[in-house]
Amino acid sequence: MIFAAIILAEAAGIHDGKYVCQTQSYGPEARGGASKAEVVISDEEIDYPKAIKPDILVAMNQKSCDAYFYDLKPTGMLIVDSTFVKQLPTTRSVAIPFTRIAREKLGKELGANIMALGALAVFSGAVSLSSLEAAVVSRSEKGTEEFNRKALELGIELAGNTLKSDAEADNYEDPSDE
Amino acid sequence: MIFAAIILAEAAGIHDGKYVCQTQSYGPEARGGASKAEVVISDEEIDYPKAIKPDILVAMNQKSCDAYFYDLKPTGMLIVDSTFVKQLPTTRSVAIPFTRIAREKLGKELGANIMALGALAVFSGAVSLSSLEAAVVSRSEKGTEEFNRKALELGIELAGNTLKSDAEADNYEDPSDE
Repeated sequence: MIFAAIILAEAAGIHDGKYVCQTQSYGPEARGGASKAEVVISDEEIDYPKAIKPDILVAMNQKSCDAYFYDLKPTGMLIVDSTFVKQLPTTRSVAIPFTRIAREKLGKELGANIMALGALAVFSGAVSLSSLEAAVVSRSEKGTEEFNRKALELGIELAGNTLKSDAEADNYEDPSDE
Repeated sequence: MIFAAIILAEAAGIHDGKYVCQTQSYGPEARGGASKAEVVISDEEIDYPKAIKPDILVAMNQKSCDAYFYDLKPTGMLIVDSTFVKQLPTTRSVAIPFTRIAREKLGKELGANIMALGALAVFSGAVSLSSLEAAVVSRSEKGTEEFNRKALELGIELAGNTLKSDAEADNYEDPSDE
């Protein structure tokens, strides 16, 4: 997720010209995980570079969902990878099986983080999608640009589908869930 | 330098078990540059995740040296890549031509950031060299592990040579400087 966070930060900071701080925490500082990535995006100077009450939390596994859910703003949005997060702490959440879809549609689980980034961008509106695509391409290792761009577009599409049907938004069912 | 900062953070946080925050700033937040990477390492919980008065500043070019030198703690140490930094704002500095040496000894300028990281580790003592090597290897793209490990060792060696000769420490002369 550090890779996804850096892309988001570059898109908003370098391409969109926003004030951006992007933080990683490691060791005991990360609480409940080996590491944690945060991005603060603002139109003004940033007082405190960490996300104290995030507007959006993306949890790719149950452990990070459990550890960080209570930091989320009460009106905030939780996005989870329902491939691994089975217990949702709130109905105010969007559950998309990023890893499973990456495996099926991209042939590699590796794309799940960039897919989640695409979904986050749609739900947050914090960054322009064109800037995000530019940052994805410029940050990708040679030979992985097209894979990452596809993953981003797939994530944007999945989020769009979820938005289209408000009724399903809080309850994305995964028919093939084992 | 983001790559070098993440390696330092992982080495101290995950391998050494310290509290670590690693920050990138982008856009206007970065002042005088496109981006800026910071690492705070502590034995205790970290109050403020950015380096307000850094103990060590590594400046790889003149612009970042000029922009960030005044943030440095009065007793802090400035490490510069003298391939590009020609005007030193203080005599309390270590000038090593990382990029030139990377080009000559590693065959690629790309190793300069990891060399600077090795030097920083020696001068700061903030991280164990074995943890740093482990983090370099685990974070390197497949096929680049050996190159990055060599770059790290070269940086450590250069810093060691500088330390050995205190008289030369503040005034590393670059004989072939054009």
